[in-house]
Order: sequence, then C-alpha cells, then structure tokens
Amino acid sequence: MAASNVVFVLLICFIINSFAKRDSLYDFLFNGDYEFIDLTHPFDNQTVYWPNAQVFRFTKQIGDYDATGSWYAANDFTAGEHGGTHIDAPYHFAKTGLHVGELPLTKLIAALIIIDISSIVNDDPKFVLYKTHLDHLLYYEDKPSLLIFKFGWSKYFNDTKKYLGQNDNDNTLNFPGLSEEVVEWIISANKKVVGIGVDVASVDPGSSTNFPVHKILSTKGLYGIENVNLSRQIPETGCTALALPMKIALGTGAPLRLVAICSKQEPK
Amino acid sequence: MAASNVVFVLLICFIINSFAKRDSLYDFLFNGDYEFIDLTHPFDNQTVYWPNAQVFRFTKQIGDYDATGSWYAANDFTAGEHGGTHIDAPYHFAKTGLHVGELPLTKLIAALIIIDISSIVNDDPKFVLYKTHLDHLLYYEDKPSLLIFKFGWSKYFNDTKKYLGQNDNDNTLNFPGLSEEVVEWIISANKKVVGIGVDVASVDPGSSTNFPVHKILSTKGLYGIENVNLSRQIPETGCTALALPMKIALGTGAPLRLVAICSKQEPK
Repeated sequence: MAASNVVFVLLICFIINSFAKRDSLYDFLFNGDYEFIDLTHPFDNQTVYWPNAQVFRFTKQIGDYDATGSWYAANDFTAGEHGGTHIDAPYHFAKTGLHVGELPLTKLIAALIIIDISSIVNDDPKFVLYKTHLDHLLYYEDKPSLLIFKFGWSKYFNDTKKYLGQNDNDNTLNFPGLSEEVVEWIISANKKVVGIGVDVASVDPGSSTNFPVHKILSTKGLYGIENVNLSRQIPETGCTALALPMKIALGTGAPLRLVAICSKQEPK
Repeated sequence: MAASNVVFVLLICFIINSFAKRDSLYDFLFNGDYEFIDLTHPFDNQTVYWPNAQVFRFTKQIGDYDATGSWYAANDFTAGEHGGTHIDAPYHFAKTGLHVGELPLTKLIAALIIIDISSIVNDDPKFVLYKTHLDHLLYYEDKPSLLIFKFGWSKYFNDTKKYLGQNDNDNTLNFPGLSEEVVEWIISANKKVVGIGVDVASVDPGSSTNFPVHKILSTKGLYGIENVNLSRQIPETGCTALALPMKIALGTGAPLRLVAICSKQEPK
C-alpha cells in the first residue's frame, strides 16, 4: 500500500476511534467486561470498633404491619466515626487537614493497587511492614491512586478479640501494620498516591501508642482506610476504587462504602 | 478505493479499536473527558429529617492537642436512617424486601437519567406528577437505570420548614411528589429501572398519608432515593450514577453517597 494510503487508513481509524470514545461510561461499565467487588464489611452487631469506642447500634423505631396490613420499618442508629470499614480524614490527626465532607471526589475515585503481603505476614500479629519487605513488590500508577495493603486479616473480622489481638492480661492490641518508614517512602516515591488502606483495624500496628503513620497521612493530606474487607479475591492492578464515605461535613472519619470495579479478564 | 481496500481499512480499524477497548476503566475515567458531580447533601446540624425523626447529631469525643503537641479528633454520631440524602431499601415498606446491606452493586451502579420537571412544578408545593405531564418527556436506557426527578427543590434544603412546607396550623407537609399512577407506568414501561430518586424529602408528595409510591417501589424491589442534591447543573442523559449507601446490614434505609460521573461534553 502506498504511503498516502497508509495515512488515509490511519485517518479513517482516528475518526472511527473518536466516535468510539464517545460511548458513555455506562456503555463501558455494562458491556460485560467488568465486575463490581464490595470491599466493605457490613455494619451490624459484629462490626469491629476500637476497644471502648461507640459501636454500631440500632434503635429500632418500628417494624410492623399497620391496621391496613401494610408493612413499615425504620430505625435510628448510633456509631463511632472510626469503626468497621471507614475513612480517616486528614483532620483526624491534623487540625488544618480536610474534614470528611471536604475530601474531593477526584481523590475518592482512584486507581486501586492491592499490595498483597499476606504471605510475608504469615498470620503474625506482631508483624510490621518495613521498606525492605517491599523493594521488589511495589507497583505505581501515574494516576490518583489508592494503595491497599493486604495483611490477610479479613478472615478474623467476625472475631473481634482475635482481629484486634486483644490481650486481657496487659490490655495490649496485637495486629500487623505499617511502619513510619515505609509510608514516608511510599509518599515520597509517588506523589499521585491519595490514600492508604489496610485490612486491619489501623494503619499503625496494634502495638502503636503514638500513631506515626496516622500522623504522616493526616499531615500530608492523604486519607486512610481501615478494616478493608479483602475476603474476596481481587486483581492486584487494573481495578478502580470508589471510596465513597457518608458525607459527614465536619467528620474526622466516616463509614465508607468501598467498591472496586475490576476487569473480569486477567489483570495486565 | 476498491471494495477490498475498504474491507482492509475496516479490519485495521477493528483491530486498533479492540486494543483501545483494553484500556482500563481508570484510563477511561481519568482521560480528562469526565467529571464527578456530587449529588449528596452534607450531614450536619442543618440536614433535613422528617418531623420528629432522629436528626443527625455529633457527640464529640475529643478534638485537641495532646501533651506532645499532636492534634487528635474523633466523634460519635446518631442519626435516623431516613434523613438527608439517603436510600430507602425495599424492606422499608415490604417485609420480604431486601435490606440495605443486601442491595446488589449491579443495581447501585447504574445509568442515570435526570427528568427535569422543575419548570412544570414551577415552585408549587402542592404539585403532584401524573403521567400526562410526562408523555413526551420520558427517556429510557436499555441498562440498569436510576431515574431522578428534579422538582427544583434543592434550593430550599437549608431551610427545613420551607423545604418540607411545614404548616404549623394544621401540621401538614407541603412539597411536590410523584403519583402512584406515574410510578406504576414507569415501572411497567421499563423493566431496567432499578431505582427512583427525587430532590424532595419523599417520593410521595408531602400531603400523602398512605405512601403509595413507597409501597410500589418496595413491593417491586426497587430502591428509592430522597433528598437528592440537584443544586448543580447536570446533563439529563449520559451520566452514570454511583449510589453507594452506608452498608447497614439490616437497614431499612441508610445515608447515601450519590455521585454522578458525566462526560464534560454536551450530553448526547
């Protein structure tokens, strides 16, 4: 084919492709190639909260048939901001940080990267993740990204005492977490990381008393996500995270609905 | 160009287009063509609740600097399920209906259709929408769809008394809503409609005492969304809705984060 024909072919392709890109997002979403994976633990009587925090509690208002035979049910509820699958806003540990209601959607909808360190953790509740564990493991995207670390802890979520590693003798908590070092490194290595999530009750290890990782995230304007539900298999790359918290205007944190949209194909 | 050349061009285009479609969803989302529009009112002291319902209230736990100079803030909160921007699960008005925690993501992420009837409503708090108002207006998608009716009421959200049309003399509420007739018609006309939303406090008009629209939605397995924030301009078609409620396992309803993803281009 002559060079002019090649140019012509490419031109036609460009035009056709331009039209193809005008497909709406939902044509793309509902073409059968994607699945929605819920990374959220439910809120009920079993939901994990920090010891002595306000747990999720219903106050049932009504749930009955009326005189005409119609069912009607409604409840009130009470909860701490920081239990179950939830978001920590920067304001949690930084007075000048954003509240939950101020977090921009352009950070809450982000590329999702799962960093599966569960085989390194190997069920050790004293495990702390350092940079040396990750040197050959970490993958970044050149887009707003949420990094979620999989410690392999979601399987304990329905047993609060085990999940938190509560030791009644010394009142300590024992579950794995991130070191200050590793989080400093991640944030400095990739400015597009907007949030850090974990499948344990805190980004800091259970043994922490001064919460350096919380402080770094808040100070740097990143959000944290705790108690991510990683019970289901999920591709480590190629998914998109929808991290949509209850819009508590002045919240330091809030219950979060965390959903991943993933290609049904093998991840790239 | 000969017919064989045309076939060749189309073949090349098909191949190129096939590769283009393998872009991940977030390549698509973050290519600059889309914007995220928050359709959620914030939860604070001004959030609209039904009269005598439990309003959103914080119980501040702490918000102060500690001895080392570190800021730390956290709250508890109490709320009714059915205030502010929220979802009504089918269980609200049907004992065998799904609870909030059981609503499938394939219905909560849906094509979004905005039906702007605000010019017909014309600020009339007694307005009720009948089929005759819509005969030439209604647009459907052949996909799971959320239909949101814009009565033009979001502008009153910060004035609860005006928003609800509370009449102190006779204890009535006066705000516009949907008729039983129009909802029956919509549901029978398009089986892909998975939810109905409104920018007023109830899918039924304020004057309703037996809530037929609530009952239809619950009985048919659709969810309702009330107090949608339509303060911002939004294309009537071509957007995708992310309707992600707080995952209250046995909820009759729940606070909802409602976000539209829309093309920045003019809607088709």
